[in-house]
Amino acid sequence: EATFDPKEHQHLRYNPLRDSWVLVSAHRMKRPWAGQVEKPAEEHVPRYDPCNPLCPGNTRANGEVNPHYDSTFVFENDFPALQPDAPDPGPHQHPLFQSKAARGVCKVMCFHPWSDVTLPLMKKEEVVKVIDKWAELVEELGATYPWVQIFENKGAMMGCSNPHPHCQVWASNFLPNEPALSDRCQRAYYQKHGEPLLLEYAKQEAEKKERVVVESSDWLAVVPYWATWPYQTLLLPRRHVLRISDLTKDEREDLADIMKRLLTKYDNLFEVSFPYSMGWHGAPTGPYLEGDNSHWQLHAHYYPPLLRSALVKKFMVGYEMLALEQRDLTPEQVISTTWLLSEGVVGSSAV
Amino acid sequence: EATFDPKEHQHLRYNPLRDSWVLVSAHRMKRPWAGQVEKPAEEHVPRYDPCNPLCPGNTRANGEVNPHYDSTFVFENDFPALQPDAPDPGPHQHPLFQSKAARGVCKVMCFHPWSDVTLPLMKKEEVVKVIDKWAELVEELGATYPWVQIFENKGAMMGCSNPHPHCQVWASNFLPNEPALSDRCQRAYYQKHGEPLLLEYAKQEAEKKERVVVESSDWLAVVPYWATWPYQTLLLPRRHVLRISDLTKDEREDLADIMKRLLTKYDNLFEVSFPYSMGWHGAPTGPYLEGDNSHWQLHAHYYPPLLRSALVKKFMVGYEMLALEQRDLTPEQVISTTWLLSEGVVGSSAV
Ligand SMILES: O=P(O)(O)O[C@H]1O[C@H](CO)[C@@H](O)[C@H](O)[C@H]1O
Ligand SMILES: O=P(O)(O)O[C@H]1O[C@H](CO)[C@@H](O)[C@H](O)[C@H]1O
Repeated sequence: EATFDPKEHQHLRYNPLRDSWVLVSAHRMKRPWAGQVEKPAEEHVPRYDPCNPLCPGNTRANGEVNPHYDSTFVFENDFPALQPDAPDPGPHQHPLFQSKAARGVCKVMCFHPWSDVTLPLMKKEEVVKVIDKWAELVEELGATYPWVQIFENKGAMMGCSNPHPHCQVWASNFLPNEPALSDRCQRAYYQKHGEPLLLEYAKQEAEKKERVVVESSDWLAVVPYWATWPYQTLLLPRRHVLRISDLTKDEREDLADIMKRLLTKYDNLFEVSFPYSMGWHGAPTGPYLEGDNSHWQLHAHYYPPLLRSALVKKFMVGYEMLALEQRDLTPEQVISTTWLLSEGVVGSSAV
Repeated sequence: EATFDPKEHQHLRYNPLRDSWVLVSAHRMKRPWAGQVEKPAEEHVPRYDPCNPLCPGNTRANGEVNPHYDSTFVFENDFPALQPDAPDPGPHQHPLFQSKAARGVCKVMCFHPWSDVTLPLMKKEEVVKVIDKWAELVEELGATYPWVQIFENKGAMMGCSNPHPHCQVWASNFLPNEPALSDRCQRAYYQKHGEPLLLEYAKQEAEKKERVVVESSDWLAVVPYWATWPYQTLLLPRRHVLRISDLTKDEREDLADIMKRLLTKYDNLFEVSFPYSMGWHGAPTGPYLEGDNSHWQLHAHYYPPLLRSALVKKFMVGYEMLALEQRDLTPEQVISTTWLLSEGVVGSSAV
């Protein structure tokens, strides 16, 4: 029998944050692609568009007028998936037809007054203001809500319908599936090994250096050993930090810096403003503020869809939906010289 | 406080097959859509294309020549994600860097010699042959492999790179995440309630009639109470059946019939050859053939991406990837008069 070589032989890898497996089949990248090609991203976004409801001074769908903001700007989503006052479906349900109350708030946060910038193109001080506002919202909404989900859908390919740089913040009266699973996994690891899962993981990755994309004194971004999306990354503090609101001033500045570097690398990889969905996971809030959350470690997930080029994405379809997620190259293979060296000039046409 | 109305008030619904929740926010359909619009599907697929590797008599990537088949045709995937002989990564692993052997086979199955037909456009007897071949493959591969995943990715939007009607069959030496979870959930329900989860569910839905799309003497297709994709359906036998290979001749004929009706309805809904990923889940095989699988019930999942029209899909992105799946209309709302009445003529331009 041949010696195992992860670049040659398909295998399963374990995701300890989700207690599930991913199928890694390196040799699948060799197959030719004759399938769907995406539309190229819109190239010329005007700095100010009088019709864009996210620009300063413009009127939104509900008639409200945006202030002439010059930094971040937060407002209530005009079509919220969660509202604060929905009634309870009530008890006495058949076990196969169970529902429960969902209450919360959905906010939108513009990163910058200009539509033609993205986080990597913004000044470091401007990105720090975004981080400060994230921390503020987690404190404010987390005072009562058990979960505050900060997420950014970037690019039309990721269902984003507005090119103005923005993210969303949805707070809910329940712990959603993903953080509930992550909480359970981190807790079990902590109970068994006596230290936070992601703190140990960051230490291991910093030593191995096989999957590190960018690092700084306080932060580390890696393609996780169990990544499902081709260029997926996990952004981790080196210190034990429960929530984004616990970051020091220095850590926020360092975070702004590493985010700019990571996102610039993404943009340079296929010479396109890289699409992704990203979001923060930290210790739960509201009633959980009272409990022990030592097993938690703050982190951000970046899930970018592209596989082969700016126009060919990875499809998570039949086998992935019905059986398990499958990737076509190893996480170590994506840490290619190209990606590592692509840190130079900022901008989508510079490699 | 207002009385709870599922069409008006967001709520969570429980998916008993996955032990997870979905957020149902009916009023989100009211939001205008200015985001990505998909490419229209290719309209004129030639019946025979000398360059298409799936057509009868043509040469494939590896140099093999297809026979002049006149019904179904099965061959080994030329770029398999699973191969029978991959070596084992070996033991003694750090708990955060765990891998294990993945072995299996990947087959492709053409449904018909013509490229310009789809299952709903094929004759009933031709669809029966597809079902017979599925059953045969489950018996053959399931003799040793614990899991045989039959799945169809239909349409470019679902990562399908060849318009010729076909599906895939991937057999593995492990139980993948999704069936492992489904096995656990069905077993727990059976232990608690003394009857198979999906048998009880089919009975309840047949009585309630609120979410039934099509039904026949042996089968039922419903938009499940916990559906995540807007037009997702679950196809269930009324009798307790463990695996597709256990279906009687009559049940297979009835299945061909209901599949044709279900898929015709999909095509008529937005007047397009409806994209989807679908697949079968039945009791596990190989070593599991010896065990008790009474908790299992055979079923097929259909996961179609479209939301608003032939060109606007639902994006499962930021909140869905990082928190939990969210839908923009209730399952009961999709059982609209339009969908129910769309059963007439077969074909993408007939409503
Ligand atoms: O094998 P195919 O059809 O080339 O590939 C398609 O289905 C696979 C299994 O769901 C996916 O992993 C691929 O991303 C998709 O493009
Ligand atoms: O709220 P938006 O940006 O309009 O909508 C986008 O993000 C939501 C949250 O991930 C998704 O449910 C939508 O499908 C997507 O289009």
